[in-house]
Amino acid sequence: MKVIDKIRASASAGAVANGGDRHHHQQQQEQPDRVVFSFEFFPPKTEDGVDNLFERMDRMVAHNPTFCDITWGAGGSTADLTLDIANKMQNIICVETMMHLTCTNMPVDKIDHALETIKSNGIQNVLALRGDPPHGQDKFVQVQDGFACALDLVKHIRAKYGDYFGITVAGYPEGHPDVIGSDGVATLETYQSELAYLKKKVDAGADLIVTQLFYDTDIFLKFVNDCRQIGINCPIVPGIMPINNYKGFIRMTGFCKTKIPAEIMAALEPIKDNEEAVRKYGVHLGTEMCKKILASGIKTLHLYTLNMEKSALAILMNLGLIEESKIPRSFPWRRPTNVNRVKEDVRPIFWANRPKSYMSRTMGWEQYPHGRWGDSCNPSYGALSDYQFMRPRARDKKLQEEWVVPLNSIKDINEKFSGLCLGKIRTSPWSELDSLQPETRIINEQLGKINLKGFLTINSQPSVNAERSDSPSVGWGGPGGYVYQKAYVEFFCSPDKLTTLVEKCKQYPLLTYMAVNKDGRSWISNVGKNDVNAVTWGVFPAREIIQPTVVDPASFLIWKDEAFEIWSRGWASLYPEGDPSRQLISQVQSSYFLVSLVDNDYIKGDLFAVFSDI
Amino acid sequence: MKVIDKIRASASAGAVANGGDRHHHQQQQEQPDRVVFSFEFFPPKTEDGVDNLFERMDRMVAHNPTFCDITWGAGGSTADLTLDIANKMQNIICVETMMHLTCTNMPVDKIDHALETIKSNGIQNVLALRGDPPHGQDKFVQVQDGFACALDLVKHIRAKYGDYFGITVAGYPEGHPDVIGSDGVATLETYQSELAYLKKKVDAGADLIVTQLFYDTDIFLKFVNDCRQIGINCPIVPGIMPINNYKGFIRMTGFCKTKIPAEIMAALEPIKDNEEAVRKYGVHLGTEMCKKILASGIKTLHLYTLNMEKSALAILMNLGLIEESKIPRSFPWRRPTNVNRVKEDVRPIFWANRPKSYMSRTMGWEQYPHGRWGDSCNPSYGALSDYQFMRPRARDKKLQEEWVVPLNSIKDINEKFSGLCLGKIRTSPWSELDSLQPETRIINEQLGKINLKGFLTINSQPSVNAERSDSPSVGWGGPGGYVYQKAYVEFFCSPDKLTTLVEKCKQYPLLTYMAVNKDGRSWISNVGKNDVNAVTWGVFPAREIIQPTVVDPASFLIWKDEAFEIWSRGWASLYPEGDPSRQLISQVQSSYFLVSLVDNDYIKGDLFAVFSDI
Repeated sequence: MKVIDKIRASASAGAVANGGDRHHHQQQQEQPDRVVFSFEFFPPKTEDGVDNLFERMDRMVAHNPTFCDITWGAGGSTADLTLDIANKMQNIICVETMMHLTCTNMPVDKIDHALETIKSNGIQNVLALRGDPPHGQDKFVQVQDGFACALDLVKHIRAKYGDYFGITVAGYPEGHPDVIGSDGVATLETYQSELAYLKKKVDAGADLIVTQLFYDTDIFLKFVNDCRQIGINCPIVPGIMPINNYKGFIRMTGFCKTKIPAEIMAALEPIKDNEEAVRKYGVHLGTEMCKKILASGIKTLHLYTLNMEKSALAILMNLGLIEESKIPRSFPWRRPTNVNRVKEDVRPIFWANRPKSYMSRTMGWEQYPHGRWGDSCNPSYGALSDYQFMRPRARDKKLQEEWVVPLNSIKDINEKFSGLCLGKIRTSPWSELDSLQPETRIINEQLGKINLKGFLTINSQPSVNAERSDSPSVGWGGPGGYVYQKAYVEFFCSPDKLTTLVEKCKQYPLLTYMAVNKDGRSWISNVGKNDVNAVTWGVFPAREIIQPTVVDPASFLIWKDEAFEIWSRGWASLYPEGDPSRQLISQVQSSYFLVSLVDNDYIKGDLFAVFSDI
Repeated sequence: MKVIDKIRASASAGAVANGGDRHHHQQQQEQPDRVVFSFEFFPPKTEDGVDNLFERMDRMVAHNPTFCDITWGAGGSTADLTLDIANKMQNIICVETMMHLTCTNMPVDKIDHALETIKSNGIQNVLALRGDPPHGQDKFVQVQDGFACALDLVKHIRAKYGDYFGITVAGYPEGHPDVIGSDGVATLETYQSELAYLKKKVDAGADLIVTQLFYDTDIFLKFVNDCRQIGINCPIVPGIMPINNYKGFIRMTGFCKTKIPAEIMAALEPIKDNEEAVRKYGVHLGTEMCKKILASGIKTLHLYTLNMEKSALAILMNLGLIEESKIPRSFPWRRPTNVNRVKEDVRPIFWANRPKSYMSRTMGWEQYPHGRWGDSCNPSYGALSDYQFMRPRARDKKLQEEWVVPLNSIKDINEKFSGLCLGKIRTSPWSELDSLQPETRIINEQLGKINLKGFLTINSQPSVNAERSDSPSVGWGGPGGYVYQKAYVEFFCSPDKLTTLVEKCKQYPLLTYMAVNKDGRSWISNVGKNDVNAVTWGVFPAREIIQPTVVDPASFLIWKDEAFEIWSRGWASLYPEGDPSRQLISQVQSSYFLVSLVDNDYIKGDLFAVFSDI
């Protein structure tokens, strides 16, 4: 979705929240009623850095930024990396992504390659810049077959891609660094010609302006006013860079020729060697600047994070825009932002703890069939890749600590799984998440018990019968509705245990199950191959029923390859070659069944009853 | 759907009901576990006769026959009428329809015209016959460019239409009348050559056999056995013709050269002039014949109704195959059988009391988009036609009695509407149905009251919160599930009343409403133009959530034309020209609003609270 449309939607959503009529409501300059914010990142230099950035982004995206943008390295130096990060941001992290694109060293075919790439990846937002001079040069140089300025780039994008992209351009409240004199200010004449140039960029098709960083809020507010005077009507988003570190601050403001108000220098001078104090002041200053901006009626904030998490979040927390405590989810899983699958509203439960793996395996599902998973009988999941078993370094270490212990018998394995349910350990090879989902806590004890009995659970949810949709533990979708779940548990168990369980299931006619072994040759189930079971749904005012999570045989058979593979690639491989524990894990992997069990009576059922005397 | 597939589905459904595994279950000769039955009709000679036939069919179809068939008049004499009746049976009555087609007087282009017509109307079943000799001739004559026998017709249908049609052929347990000698029996040789010919018809692509009428059950059972011996494996459905009338019985059996067992003649002889006694005996005999057939393991029955209702239903009742008492609905509305829209599973609530009008206005929706109404944002409803305001004669008379009374004031109108809710009258110009839906009884009293206040209700449903899906009053969809409804009421009211109501709705944030006047220029609502509200849904084991009924603005605006038009075409027009009551009705029609009101709180809400002190 285009960022400008998200900002507009926030405007109308605000009106609804206030009980207004969303349809007769039109705001000047598309200023949202709710404050919206966004984060900017740059491509890290190392692979570990990229890993860490994704982990960080994932956490930050949980706070619902309107978009995140990723910069285009000077002179195109990070082109491939930027394209790759942008793709993963949009499609794996699932945040609305804006990619920077500059003219430096970019002939038009390279420009088009970049644009075609992000378009095919479902990204709809570009920040069009002229870019800095090529390395080692003072002045920007137009490359052959390239563009001379951002205006040309904007024109090209509109001419070639029509209305597909949302185009953002940069605004310079103090004038572009190129025109700022040695006295630190642009002349009135150059300032005005810059404004006129900005208007040209907007007239050529840009629909959003993000400003260069600034520390004098009055200059920004005057700039906005000046823009409005000459007829620039699109939203102008202030770019805020929290001061993290004195030297970096001086270097950056020097490079950008940013005016620093005297009181800021005065406040920094005595603490400049105390990094913690500088950071704290940076958060204070950022908060105050934002307050002043918001008070003026502007409801958008853009944070230059410099790939750091704490200061940006602290400022938003101070402003009351995000909360530390658990807020109800907007949906049971993070919705895709890819323009080709924004209508997606159904997903199999199996990847609940491995959402990134799900996104990567379904990347090919671009033209999402009517947003309904159920319609595509044989969804084609991508093959398993190393990516699915890769873990960020920090998690890998924790997993080593918690899971690489000598295994002498099946009992040791049962206890390991049980310990995870009881919170004794926090990581799991079967989960990308840091800890159990909060709702799972409701059934922790019961899960712990069945694991000790040899039903090794890797996924579960409690039943939910008409809880309010704004309940912090199980709610989602906002207020006014009711949510439901069928109790679900998925586990590995031995063939003997399975036989006993299937026999006992006859006493519980509303339990439905599917079980399959590693090679897929043994299939035991009491449901049809095409039976899709909705296990999470919600009922909201003036809406169709939303059913975001399903259990179905087709996906289960795809998932089982991944689930079984984790025994070796996700766990055994953590042990040294030849370790006897590997042998035990391998036995389990080759002999056990993967079982999916649903209690269809979400009103009176007790999923755990069937395990009670096994 | 093909009848043979429905019979097969009954076989597997039976297995599921018994807890078996429907997927590993294959029955020989596709004999269903449940008894299935079907009705045959012929095209009446008069328009009134056709009207009455549809009324009768509508009632009979409520008992869930597997299919109904309509005959092809001798020599094609009723071709156009048969095609028209078949179309309406399939698409308005919504019963799986099988059309007879004969070779008599039918060159291939006429045959193809008939087949193309029913194909385009979504009919998938043909009964292929040679047909009787042309009028005035003794022997069948092959017409130029036509076919000589049913086998040729079967071959042609398979060759030209591939697998699209289910093809039924006739079986003659006593031999074809042409080969029955003056002694009343066919020679063994001719009998066997007939069996071989029947096998050829099956081998050429027929997938179902319906037999000629018979009264000696042993002959039928022997015939089935003989068929099996020579490798005819498809289901063989016995054709049962209840004796209704002595003379008719003698004529028909004479024409068909049917053997009449002596004990039947002996039983009929003494009562042959007592029509009631003959009919009673016919039901008794039919019941006994069917019992014997069912006892032999055959689970299909075909009833030659001769367009009469009572005897056929009485036999089925005696056999315990249908019940007089209300049985839970299989779906909240009668599902279409047209092959192009069998996946339809969502429908706007507005036509709940006018299902035939809905079917006729949506006839063009052949390629039903994924069975989901919600996906087609602007469904194109057919224009209003006279058909929508036509009433069968019997209903018209009742409506005259109940609704054509002098109206002196609005109060008289309010009382008329209120009386309908309270059961004082039974018909309504706004309803095709004979009486209120049983579930409406739950809220009758409250509806009666608001009608007296000037909220003239034409459609409503009570809220339902997790009732068992097999509840006789509000359940549907079979056992094991839970069903839900949001309370709904739709009414006409004056602009003043509407203003008061809208004001009061502010105290009830979970009420959503839409109101529009006759010309559509005034639109008052608190929902968005694209908000589709599911107001009936069900949750079943191993299924996605089913949401059969929705409230949405787009359809509401189409429906309002029909709803307003009924004031004049459905009510005022019943009064004589110039009657002053017409004037009052016309004033209401032109000044009132049509209002749709949903209480989204199906758990704790009270839809009628908002009316309490108006």
